[in-house]
Amino acid sequence: MGLIVQKFGGTSVGNVERILNVAGCVKEETDRGNQVVVVVSAMGKTTDQLVNMAKEISGQPSKREMDMLLATGEQVTISLLAMALKEKGLEAVSYTGWQAGIVTEPVHGNARITKINTEAIEGELNQGKVVIVAGFQGITESGNITTLGRGGSDTTAVALAAALNADKCDIYTDVTGVFTTDPRYIPSARKLLSISYDEMLELANLGAGVLHPRAVEFAKNYQVRLEVRSSMEKVEGTIIEGEATMEQNLVVRGVAFEDEITRVTVLGLSNSLTSLSTIFTTLASNQINVDIIIQSTTETGASNLSFSIHTKDWLETLNVLEDNKSELSYEQLDAENKLAKVSIVGSGMISNPGVAAQMFEVLAANNIAIKMVSTSEIKVSAVIEEKHMHKAVEVLHEAFELGK
Amino acid sequence: MGLIVQKFGGTSVGNVERILNVAGCVKEETDRGNQVVVVVSAMGKTTDQLVNMAKEISGQPSKREMDMLLATGEQVTISLLAMALKEKGLEAVSYTGWQAGIVTEPVHGNARITKINTEAIEGELNQGKVVIVAGFQGITESGNITTLGRGGSDTTAVALAAALNADKCDIYTDVTGVFTTDPRYIPSARKLLSISYDEMLELANLGAGVLHPRAVEFAKNYQVRLEVRSSMEKVEGTIIEGEATMEQNLVVRGVAFEDEITRVTVLGLSNSLTSLSTIFTTLASNQINVDIIIQSTTETGASNLSFSIHTKDWLETLNVLEDNKSELSYEQLDAENKLAKVSIVGSGMISNPGVAAQMFEVLAANNIAIKMVSTSEIKVSAVIEEKHMHKAVEVLHEAFELGK
Repeated sequence: MGLIVQKFGGTSVGNVERILNVAGCVKEETDRGNQVVVVVSAMGKTTDQLVNMAKEISGQPSKREMDMLLATGEQVTISLLAMALKEKGLEAVSYTGWQAGIVTEPVHGNARITKINTEAIEGELNQGKVVIVAGFQGITESGNITTLGRGGSDTTAVALAAALNADKCDIYTDVTGVFTTDPRYIPSARKLLSISYDEMLELANLGAGVLHPRAVEFAKNYQVRLEVRSSMEKVEGTIIEGEATMEQNLVVRGVAFEDEITRVTVLGLSNSLTSLSTIFTTLASNQINVDIIIQSTTETGASNLSFSIHTKDWLETLNVLEDNKSELSYEQLDAENKLAKVSIVGSGMISNPGVAAQMFEVLAANNIAIKMVSTSEIKVSAVIEEKHMHKAVEVLHEAFELGK
Repeated sequence: MGLIVQKFGGTSVGNVERILNVAGCVKEETDRGNQVVVVVSAMGKTTDQLVNMAKEISGQPSKREMDMLLATGEQVTISLLAMALKEKGLEAVSYTGWQAGIVTEPVHGNARITKINTEAIEGELNQGKVVIVAGFQGITESGNITTLGRGGSDTTAVALAAALNADKCDIYTDVTGVFTTDPRYIPSARKLLSISYDEMLELANLGAGVLHPRAVEFAKNYQVRLEVRSSMEKVEGTIIEGEATMEQNLVVRGVAFEDEITRVTVLGLSNSLTSLSTIFTTLASNQINVDIIIQSTTETGASNLSFSIHTKDWLETLNVLEDNKSELSYEQLDAENKLAKVSIVGSGMISNPGVAAQMFEVLAANNIAIKMVSTSEIKVSAVIEEKHMHKAVEVLHEAFELGK
């Protein structure tokens, strides 16, 4: 008998019919003789609807009250799923985040889990019950309801799997696993049977979207065995674990991509020691996320600095930089929109120095100009024009033989 | 500086605009220098929608899970109202039932409050905050969420007012107070400025609908001063307190009425000592509420028994009695539908023996036949044909000079 943590996202519990389907997935696992803890998100568009109500009342709603409001979404799902499981003849009991003992730091909207008191859940499991836990939420030491921010339910599932020492954490989603690239655009995209935490982390960070990077990092730290699989199709998913045990001979494992990227260039930046930190501290304090950063020094001694941001932050970034022009000490600003980022990921790259070169060659051969480059040990990203994005993914996917 | 508990029902918080209006009512009270605790229900039809979702999943949903589900309704309202109050510049903080320390017995769907740990709320009040508490819900000693059943939010408000030793508990509703009878049907109905707990209890029990009898009883036991008033119209409401201090010369204070009443008659019931208790125990165990009961003995030694029920329980009542015919030992069943109950209420009746006689006389003079009668110290009820109900209310209202 094993202990499995199953996580179902908002789409998988989007309506009553789907909740009944999820109950079926849970029953299959208990029928195999396993103990099961189920983590669920809010139903479909519930969170958006709650956010909209709050916005009608306040332009900047209190974060504590926002958490109080949003936490109701998962609470609805856990109770309905418990009812559905009982209809299938299973003993089931629902737990909110606070009832499940999920303690977080006292931060609203984006809290991190600090500990999980598992006694209550373990007591229910020992009585043969399926325990359904509200994802995305926790409680502070002083009794305030918190939420975990984006990817919160994934994180709840992985954290519970770690705390309960579960044998496996199954992340059910609307795709059948992790693919070499997005199958909606590249028909030859192929499902990976296994992938390492680090590779998944790069893919997750690069917008692959099936699993939140925070949850992957948590899983890596606590060595939780993850599987990404479909709640609708009964097929094998993708295992994420310490080392990818199969297909090791492949250097590149996947191609990730995202659009709506803007490159901002700061020309003639004074070459003081603090100029870089001042710029990025200023942007960070305005909640603007910066991705790739490139600096080059000119003959005159000043620097030119380029960095990429999400296009939604474009105007605000320019405003922030303009407003602080005297402090930041630069000559001119420039921005280029309609860019995209294409990345190849694979832990085999570490020992294969030619991979980046091969990527640039493939893009060049297809007349795709590279605007910025960023590399990590297991990833190479190139910023290109948005209009070339799908073509770039296609040619890279083919060049690195990912469809085979 | 006083401490006021304000309660707003589902209609008063039915949409964002109304929540903003409620925030205005709260601010008026804090502007007067009072500390305020606000108790709110779920928004408008929220509870019905949640119940419907549960019913789609299960014909008989688990009561624990039903409480888990329904408790989200008030949690949405408290967070939105807290945001609205902050928009008006007030410091406000929302509390679920469990955060507010509302402990109940371990019963789901209809729990009674056993104690309230007020430390947290008092701490917030002392910091100058308005505390918004989710009505209708509590928590058991072992940490399960419970709901208080019908009239639950009224009960939460009164219980909090008692526990916090509040100066007053204002029940905001969609009418401006307690009337001598329903002003929708009787234009001469007049708002009462004050009424005693006992009179309100009879009126509440008789379907006046503004305030749940359970809350009135709680208020009476703990001597909580109540006011029923309108959340939309800024006018004086009706004070409910120990003794009605005004209009004491009036014997009858109000006329209550309800329709959809069925009279069931059991003919030829064997005259054993246990026959009555067996019948009503059997009905109670099938959740059938019985109101008026009349028994008469015939010449043959057997009894005829009549009792009134809500018409919705009509068929089930007959089925239950048929199914247990041999045990109950009777000859024949009979039922009459389309009946109504009209009642006059007033604490002055205790010392006025002629009041019941006057009521019967008025009805007779208007050719309205009385099918059943029930009396208490401060109430006389008559069951009549439904088609005469409004006429009966009108003539009684006039005869007892309630419009003046």
